[in-house]
Amino acid sequence: MSRSPLIIDCHGHYTTAPPALEAWRNRQIAGIKDPAQAPKVSELNISDDELRVSIEKNQLRLMQERGSDITIFSPRASFMAHHIGDFQVSSTWAAICNELCHRVAALFPENFIGVAMLPQSPGVDPKTCIPELERCINDYGMVGINLNPDPSGGHWTAPPLTDRHWYPIYEKMVEYDIPAMVHVSTSCNPAFHTTGAHYLNADTTAFMQFIQGDLFRDFPTLRFIIPHGGGCVPYHFGRFRGLAQEMKKPLLKDHVLNNVFFDTCVYHQPGIDLLTRVIPVENILFASEMIGAVRGIDPETGHYYDDTKRYIAATPNLTEAQRHLVFEGNARRVFPRLDAKLTALGL
Amino acid sequence: MSRSPLIIDCHGHYTTAPPALEAWRNRQIAGIKDPAQAPKVSELNISDDELRVSIEKNQLRLMQERGSDITIFSPRASFMAHHIGDFQVSSTWAAICNELCHRVAALFPENFIGVAMLPQSPGVDPKTCIPELERCINDYGMVGINLNPDPSGGHWTAPPLTDRHWYPIYEKMVEYDIPAMVHVSTSCNPAFHTTGAHYLNADTTAFMQFIQGDLFRDFPTLRFIIPHGGGCVPYHFGRFRGLAQEMKKPLLKDHVLNNVFFDTCVYHQPGIDLLTRVIPVENILFASEMIGAVRGIDPETGHYYDDTKRYIAATPNLTEAQRHLVFEGNARRVFPRLDAKLTALGL
Repeated sequence: MSRSPLIIDCHGHYTTAPPALEAWRNRQIAGIKDPAQAPKVSELNISDDELRVSIEKNQLRLMQERGSDITIFSPRASFMAHHIGDFQVSSTWAAICNELCHRVAALFPENFIGVAMLPQSPGVDPKTCIPELERCINDYGMVGINLNPDPSGGHWTAPPLTDRHWYPIYEKMVEYDIPAMVHVSTSCNPAFHTTGAHYLNADTTAFMQFIQGDLFRDFPTLRFIIPHGGGCVPYHFGRFRGLAQEMKKPLLKDHVLNNVFFDTCVYHQPGIDLLTRVIPVENILFASEMIGAVRGIDPETGHYYDDTKRYIAATPNLTEAQRHLVFEGNARRVFPRLDAKLTALGL
Repeated sequence: MSRSPLIIDCHGHYTTAPPALEAWRNRQIAGIKDPAQAPKVSELNISDDELRVSIEKNQLRLMQERGSDITIFSPRASFMAHHIGDFQVSSTWAAICNELCHRVAALFPENFIGVAMLPQSPGVDPKTCIPELERCINDYGMVGINLNPDPSGGHWTAPPLTDRHWYPIYEKMVEYDIPAMVHVSTSCNPAFHTTGAHYLNADTTAFMQFIQGDLFRDFPTLRFIIPHGGGCVPYHFGRFRGLAQEMKKPLLKDHVLNNVFFDTCVYHQPGIDLLTRVIPVENILFASEMIGAVRGIDPETGHYYDDTKRYIAATPNLTEAQRHLVFEGNARRVFPRLDAKLTALGL
């Protein structure tokens, strides 16, 4: 192909939603203890203009400044807070958040494509998430899901991701040919800072669960993206290779790397250099999680920490063809429904 | 100095203790439910010859093969299992394990120097650990302690390490001028594989707790070693710098790096290259945790994964003077009681 690669950011959240959303959520939470305060869904009114402004001033502006084209866009991860309330609370909240992401994608069809959050709730069977999942894929045209391995918010009361507990979700993922990003939400455990410990720990934990189990024997086409550069996995890849070896598992490339992918949300050059040195390029998807956990400018570089495109561009470890895979090709392979949409748009 | 640097491995556990130790522990655990089965301390008999063989055939043999001189040696981390039983159970168990490490150090005074495990127990005031700590420092001449930030074994029910809860330990550390390695034990939470997730998560969690708090304003001379190369900290150092910046904390070099050190238990060359590229050399202490989590030979190199000395020797990021710091100088600075012992030995 002679055109320049598309730059597809596979990890964006709607962190800049109009404040009415948070106000409604706060009333919903208050309503758990005092039903008189519980708001109706119809009391949340956000206009298309408000959505447009919230995106144009923020994500879309930065995408244009940094030169990325498309963001795979899901509800704000820290706001999922699956530990709050029961299934009904999570279900209503997920429906609202997913609809907003769908509206953003409809307003900016060439720049945003939706991924669904699920109405998970601690101790509740994951199959209760299926109706919302189906709605998001069938009615909204979303191309993937976010799956929270710890709906308890830092208490880790759910079974490992390789447990049959999760299989109803996996069966739907296979049926729809959609991947899941493994993404926790806010930590309500004071030991774990949400974005500085809980997120990264979850990434590492999920990868190790995949090593311990044999999930991909049951689901050979199942695909997961582990965000934040895979937690500590690339840094400790020797350890993980060695642990798999002690457990008599196949080599990681055969045991998990046909099914597990890493994003590039690693906020400094040495980290991206390590990631691209250690992990096969076919397993790396460009992402920034921009306007997320780390919004500042790095005094050591003068650039935004989360402008990860610069690090991919600067790393000596990738050829141009490999950069194309990281920026576009791998995302189209891992998200076939994204590929179909882009193809339909002539991209 | 013209002599070659000493090679000091700051992270070794007695993973090869004679099987009588584990048998006694199993009876102790059985005795929690059925006191008739509880063994007396006097029923554990391990001779000096047994200790000698368990070391000469294992750690000492590998130290000689790999060319390291001294191991800072503590009870087996996964066996601490502070979540089992109550304070009395932990107290008896810690006393036994510490005494064995002391005996090893007495048998091999030029090769092993002890570090104490503490008799921690979930929900129990850490000041109950002080008598064992004092005994290990005063009577056994140990040079540091291992501190478990999660005595619950993967449920993370203890307050963050910056909480006043832990201050009695810190006051003793300052009084004795000893560092603590932050080291969890076995995970009893099925979400967390012990050495593939829980250990690494704990390292990351502890570092983030130190960033969030202002512990080193209260204890300017307190020193912690975060093992396993600091969990995911070096890989995500940009993220941690950015998070500290959002919290209006000082630069990490001023906020935590006068007090927090990283070991080199990272089991492949790219990881050590990242560690030595990102973390100031003054903050890196050589370690292997040999005969630990990963005991195999890496098929990509033909050498043991945990032969970390090779990676330090091979990294292009260190000068010879810097390697000397990593192998010897930093350990002598962080463990002043080790330095005094070595000096007394003419080393």
